[in-house]
Amino acid sequence: MHNIKSIGTIKTPFKAIEDMPIQPKGAKDVEGIIILDEELSEGLKDLDGFSHIYLIYSFHEVKRTELTVTPFMDTQERGVFSTRTPLRPNHIGLSIVLKSVKDNKVYVDGIDVLDGTPLLDIKPFIEKFDGVKDSKSGWLKASAEDVINKRSDKRFE
Amino acid sequence: MHNIKSIGTIKTPFKAIEDMPIQPKGAKDVEGIIILDEELSEGLKDLDGFSHIYLIYSFHEVKRTELTVTPFMDTQERGVFSTRTPLRPNHIGLSIVLKSVKDNKVYVDGIDVLDGTPLLDIKPFIEKFDGVKDSKSGWLKASAEDVINKRSDKRFE
Repeated sequence: MHNIKSIGTIKTPFKAIEDMPIQPKGAKDVEGIIILDEELSEGLKDLDGFSHIYLIYSFHEVKRTELTVTPFMDTQERGVFSTRTPLRPNHIGLSIVLKSVKDNKVYVDGIDVLDGTPLLDIKPFIEKFDGVKDSKSGWLKASAEDVINKRSDKRFE
Repeated sequence: MHNIKSIGTIKTPFKAIEDMPIQPKGAKDVEGIIILDEELSEGLKDLDGFSHIYLIYSFHEVKRTELTVTPFMDTQERGVFSTRTPLRPNHIGLSIVLKSVKDNKVYVDGIDVLDGTPLLDIKPFIEKFDGVKDSKSGWLKASAEDVINKRSDKRFE
């Protein structure tokens, strides 16, 4: 139904799903490179003025869907839409990362995806659009440090 | 390549692209209802504890792609990936909205999409994952008030 295609590839040091950071906050020193399809390079113009971007990508190694999962940061089953697990109906991922741009390459810090991940979109993070104050994070009781230190296992393969 | 399908529909008061708010911040009093496909209802479990969610959806009325556009909030052409225009290579939209949940319906405040928009994913906004400090927003010089008051025109049809 939806004509979604890869617009490039995310290169990262992560060759396997196990032992990866579970979110960009746990990948602060991990550098990745986004190689955008060359014919789209012009679309990167002006991105250099933005410090952070959203990456929308495909969890390309994931084949199944679950409606409830036990998240990495919890011990109870939770509805899939209240988690960030890859096992969702559409295998679409979202990460906010720091970046710099050169030609058709975007260098990112804090990348938490598998090497070779197909990129679907880049959007600028714009504080005036996206800033959220006083949010509530439901079941997530972990400390910021827990989030940074947690590593994945094979449960979502 | 990517098997992306609609998982539900977003119902809003906006029947035409013109005169819509350009971002959720401009749609604070606009209520929408997300009707999730019934067989996925179980996936909404535990979402009630989260105050904000990301909606990922299809700009289903958009047929073309441009590599540079003049954004609503600017007078110069900018690279598409430094804007939030619908005219991107993949017509995928992202909005952060406030919500409440009842059965397989999610009621949202601050919705800025067309009525009948196909939903692709719901993800919880989690401050510990997504909070961004000290970001830079490149070309965007508009005030918060400008963003709230700006309405769309037909340029991205």
